[in-house]
Amino acid sequence: MSTICAVSTAQGGAIGIVRLSGPNSLSITDQIFKSKRTIADAPGYTIHFGRIVEPGPTPTTIDEVLVSVFRSPSSYTGEDMVEISCHGSSYILQKVMSLLIAHGAEAAQPGEFTKRAYMNGKMDLSQAEAVADLIASTSAASHRIAMTQMRGGITAKLASLRDQLLHLTSLLELELDFSDHEELSFADRDQLMTVATDIEAEITRLTSSFATGNAIKQGIPVAIIGAPNVGKSTLLNQLLHEDRAIVSDIQGTTRDIIEDTFVLQGVCFRFIDTAGIRHTDDAVEQMGIERSIKAAQRAHIILLMSEPGVPYPDIDIRPDQHIIKILNKSDAFQALHGQGLDWLQSELIKCVPAINNDDVLISNLRHKQALDLALFDIQNSIQSMSSGIPSDLVAEDLRQCIAHLSEITGGAITPNEVLSNIFSKFCIGK
Amino acid sequence: MSTICAVSTAQGGAIGIVRLSGPNSLSITDQIFKSKRTIADAPGYTIHFGRIVEPGPTPTTIDEVLVSVFRSPSSYTGEDMVEISCHGSSYILQKVMSLLIAHGAEAAQPGEFTKRAYMNGKMDLSQAEAVADLIASTSAASHRIAMTQMRGGITAKLASLRDQLLHLTSLLELELDFSDHEELSFADRDQLMTVATDIEAEITRLTSSFATGNAIKQGIPVAIIGAPNVGKSTLLNQLLHEDRAIVSDIQGTTRDIIEDTFVLQGVCFRFIDTAGIRHTDDAVEQMGIERSIKAAQRAHIILLMSEPGVPYPDIDIRPDQHIIKILNKSDAFQALHGQGLDWLQSELIKCVPAINNDDVLISNLRHKQALDLALFDIQNSIQSMSSGIPSDLVAEDLRQCIAHLSEITGGAITPNEVLSNIFSKFCIGK
Repeated sequence: MSTICAVSTAQGGAIGIVRLSGPNSLSITDQIFKSKRTIADAPGYTIHFGRIVEPGPTPTTIDEVLVSVFRSPSSYTGEDMVEISCHGSSYILQKVMSLLIAHGAEAAQPGEFTKRAYMNGKMDLSQAEAVADLIASTSAASHRIAMTQMRGGITAKLASLRDQLLHLTSLLELELDFSDHEELSFADRDQLMTVATDIEAEITRLTSSFATGNAIKQGIPVAIIGAPNVGKSTLLNQLLHEDRAIVSDIQGTTRDIIEDTFVLQGVCFRFIDTAGIRHTDDAVEQMGIERSIKAAQRAHIILLMSEPGVPYPDIDIRPDQHIIKILNKSDAFQALHGQGLDWLQSELIKCVPAINNDDVLISNLRHKQALDLALFDIQNSIQSMSSGIPSDLVAEDLRQCIAHLSEITGGAITPNEVLSNIFSKFCIGK
Repeated sequence: MSTICAVSTAQGGAIGIVRLSGPNSLSITDQIFKSKRTIADAPGYTIHFGRIVEPGPTPTTIDEVLVSVFRSPSSYTGEDMVEISCHGSSYILQKVMSLLIAHGAEAAQPGEFTKRAYMNGKMDLSQAEAVADLIASTSAASHRIAMTQMRGGITAKLASLRDQLLHLTSLLELELDFSDHEELSFADRDQLMTVATDIEAEITRLTSSFATGNAIKQGIPVAIIGAPNVGKSTLLNQLLHEDRAIVSDIQGTTRDIIEDTFVLQGVCFRFIDTAGIRHTDDAVEQMGIERSIKAAQRAHIILLMSEPGVPYPDIDIRPDQHIIKILNKSDAFQALHGQGLDWLQSELIKCVPAINNDDVLISNLRHKQALDLALFDIQNSIQSMSSGIPSDLVAEDLRQCIAHLSEITGGAITPNEVLSNIFSKFCIGK
């Protein structure tokens, strides 16, 4: 196994951290780190002050640093690890990196530390994915989903489903053993159906939670729809200005998230800017209006905006969409002066789905897809049972269902391309 | 003394560090950190894994973190210190900060950790200033100046000057004691003059080094001067494109530094973009041309650019300025195709002043100003000595000189506004 290194902090702070993981982490560090003691002999969870020195005819001090030592298996990755805490200069961090690489370390791929933690059994795949979500979290709600998942919320839920599916399979095997006794088989099928429909209900609940979980993770989509010049952009500016502090200092998230989201009472809302809707013969304007209508279709919440004397736009609304009607430039609401904003914010919060602290929400598309397949399997097996298909064929569906659920937490059989896909979305140094 | 806290890393990385310093650092951490052991009992230079938990009816885990413990006086500031290594989410870092503040910590001012280090005698003022320069360093040369200064290079040089000045003062006092013996006094004055002129030469060397030191710290100013359309912008783009990697990832330095500097063989060059110079009656264009000429005056290096058939611009050049003449669109040089760029880069490097590794360079305007005053003092005393002014008046000049040199490293008497001014330019968390 190679020893990897990466800068784990963003550029520009007072402190910069270079991280190593792998069997030679300690010995490589010793070659460029001058201190009172040798790192290779240092116990885990200890810190050592010293200097990073570039060797050569006239050895050059690159920085005065603190080195933290972690020893396998008690580290994030499960391997020997070192963290070098430097002054946050881009020159110093690049210099330390190049010295480590010159002494045998390799530059880490995105997410490679967490991938190694997964490979070494420190966490399962859903927990590893939660690490990236946690780092990206910008609101209390998205943070809670990621934290629950990282601390094994989905893992525990799936383990319980797997237990139920194994129980069901063992009941089927019992049925196989007694397959000569018709009346026993019949009684068993009833019991089997009860267990199977419980499982189906649970998987359905999980897969349905994706709509909420994903909206909370990405920001609940809100479209402001209205005729031209009723004050849509004014309202958007007012809303984004409020509570913007927590959003404004996010570097590294995509730009559209910075510009069009705001956090209200711990929940992130994502605004979809739209063109004014009106009848027009202008082809270009018509395209803009069609995009507005599509945006409205994607939204969970539609702010239908008008002003006195102007009718509300006539658009199709799905039953699962929330509508908030705003009569701008009226006594109760004046976007320009921020009047009515408190009312609007409380209306927005009312549209946020109620979530219990114990609820496990799915927020990851990969998990949703695996759950959809597992749901298909369990529904198949239920249909097979009710139509008297032999137990061994039903058992095959159940095994498929278990396999699909296992994909979420991962296992020895997780294909390399799935892993690459997951970890390539991580930042470098995690 | 209060306990301060700050996020010490830039937003957006895999890891974010929250730092505390002050007498209650450990006890405040214990109130929000759940771990196997109490931090208040932990020895210094140890690391502890645990969770940051927000108290309340349903305690919420904010993050799984590593806590590093440092105990007074063996820490950066000299006080008890804690570093909390979190996942680099803006939500988590702000939440940890607000929990620490809720439990009695105060948000640190820019540079307050280093200010405390200075106040507690962990470093002198010139070393503290070097910390900020080190963090801002983007090239090997600017890094070396800051590192030498942080490791006490200026401190040692000034200590040696101070010793010489004290020696001189004691010789003067000797002279006072024997002031009845004319011939002895005369002999002493010769010896005094030798010592004094040695000191003057040394201070002159230091204050003169500011031109080089400051240029290396800020980037050596280079002006590209030429008639319109000879290819100045093309050349600039070519130069900035080369070796740009180390510059492009600097966040937090000012934007013009990012856009107009590049690092060549460890030295940073700062390009001053200029308008083309030609005779014109257009008032606006004339203003641009005047700015070009002023830019040329500020530059250490002038790239005088032309093309076949076009004369080189006629501008005044100081003896200390380097000129590199470029005939663009010729066989030897074609900016558009990068031809001749290697030659140009080697010419630029030739203009960099030679610096010995042991040289102490002044790169800080505050130091330069104090040295100028000290130089004035020592020159005054030399003049006094040669014109036979009494020893006690000469001694007064020498004491002034020592006082001015002491301002650089700071002391108990450093005015608060000087300290505020120095540390306000630091980043938060350092």
